[in-house]
Amino acid sequence: MARLIRPLANLHEQLRRLPGIGSKTALRLAYHIINMPAEDVQRLAAALVEAKTKVCLCRTCYNLSDTPECSICADPARDKSTICVVEQPQDVMAMERSRGYKGLYHVLHGALSPLDGIGPDNLRIKELLRRLQQGEVKEVILATNSNVEGEATAAYLAQLLKPLGVVTSRIAHGLPVGGDLEYADELTLARALENRLRL
Amino acid sequence: MARLIRPLANLHEQLRRLPGIGSKTALRLAYHIINMPAEDVQRLAAALVEAKTKVCLCRTCYNLSDTPECSICADPARDKSTICVVEQPQDVMAMERSRGYKGLYHVLHGALSPLDGIGPDNLRIKELLRRLQQGEVKEVILATNSNVEGEATAAYLAQLLKPLGVVTSRIAHGLPVGGDLEYADELTLARALENRLRL
Repeated sequence: MARLIRPLANLHEQLRRLPGIGSKTALRLAYHIINMPAEDVQRLAAALVEAKTKVCLCRTCYNLSDTPECSICADPARDKSTICVVEQPQDVMAMERSRGYKGLYHVLHGALSPLDGIGPDNLRIKELLRRLQQGEVKEVILATNSNVEGEATAAYLAQLLKPLGVVTSRIAHGLPVGGDLEYADELTLARALENRLRL
Repeated sequence: MARLIRPLANLHEQLRRLPGIGSKTALRLAYHIINMPAEDVQRLAAALVEAKTKVCLCRTCYNLSDTPECSICADPARDKSTICVVEQPQDVMAMERSRGYKGLYHVLHGALSPLDGIGPDNLRIKELLRRLQQGEVKEVILATNSNVEGEATAAYLAQLLKPLGVVTSRIAHGLPVGGDLEYADELTLARALENRLRL
């Protein structure tokens, strides 16, 4: 079979390692990159390296940041008495998009998953406890995902935080806004019923 | 709305320009890249720049190459009396995968498309004529795509090559091997009937 010329094969190989990029997509991207203006390729390569080198974790909440303290932690307008615990930096973005939250965050960088060898020590849980010890925080909102690992993490944290005297809450689960009852899965419906609000 | 930190936003912006990569995919890739080992990111960035700088066009057939003459043109075992004309370097790869062809190639780098402003001067047609003038070539196989632009290009080239005294042929169109008659589209079936071979 015809082999790709070496620089192209190498690029193909590197692109193929990215998530969601199969062999054919990687090849299509590689051909596209060869046809791009040289300065655009330089700019893409520089953006890759810059993102990797300049992005660090906020020393307080462990969200992604390009400064030692992230813009949310550094914002004097945020309510410092509430911490919303999420699994990933992406979840902070999602919460911020909702515009419904004005407190701080804490990013665990994962969820408990014994099968994958991820225990409490692999998450930023010690760091969360340290923040709570400073006494400023009144409520911790557990906003981990609604899957097995996320629920287990929330349950574990709820147990752990109980003796500390802070209010612990879990984000609500139920029917998505705009969602049809007809198309909701049974677990979601069961949760929506269980957590019904008295009007 | 929450804004991405600058290095991440920049990477997101650069990735989003790639074909088939939408905003969400670009963001997912950007987060993945931040979690990649630093040397892997360096390797990807280097592969991008290297592919762009080291890949050039073969001086004879205009296929992609990392040497002045591509490995196919430089191969003494290839039949120098036949040239297969294709639109893109990818098409050379596809032909080579079929293992059915032992001649040389000529890559046009596109197809005639007046609506997109692509005329004969934008393709490597002059270069093809120059190769034919050297007198070594006996047959030109037109293997442009089977869409409007590809067919127009093949028809144009067939007309152009007629006075030169070389045999001009067009690759066959018909039912795909392993394809069901039932599911073939009518144009393909019409071509398959029209080009039937007497046994």
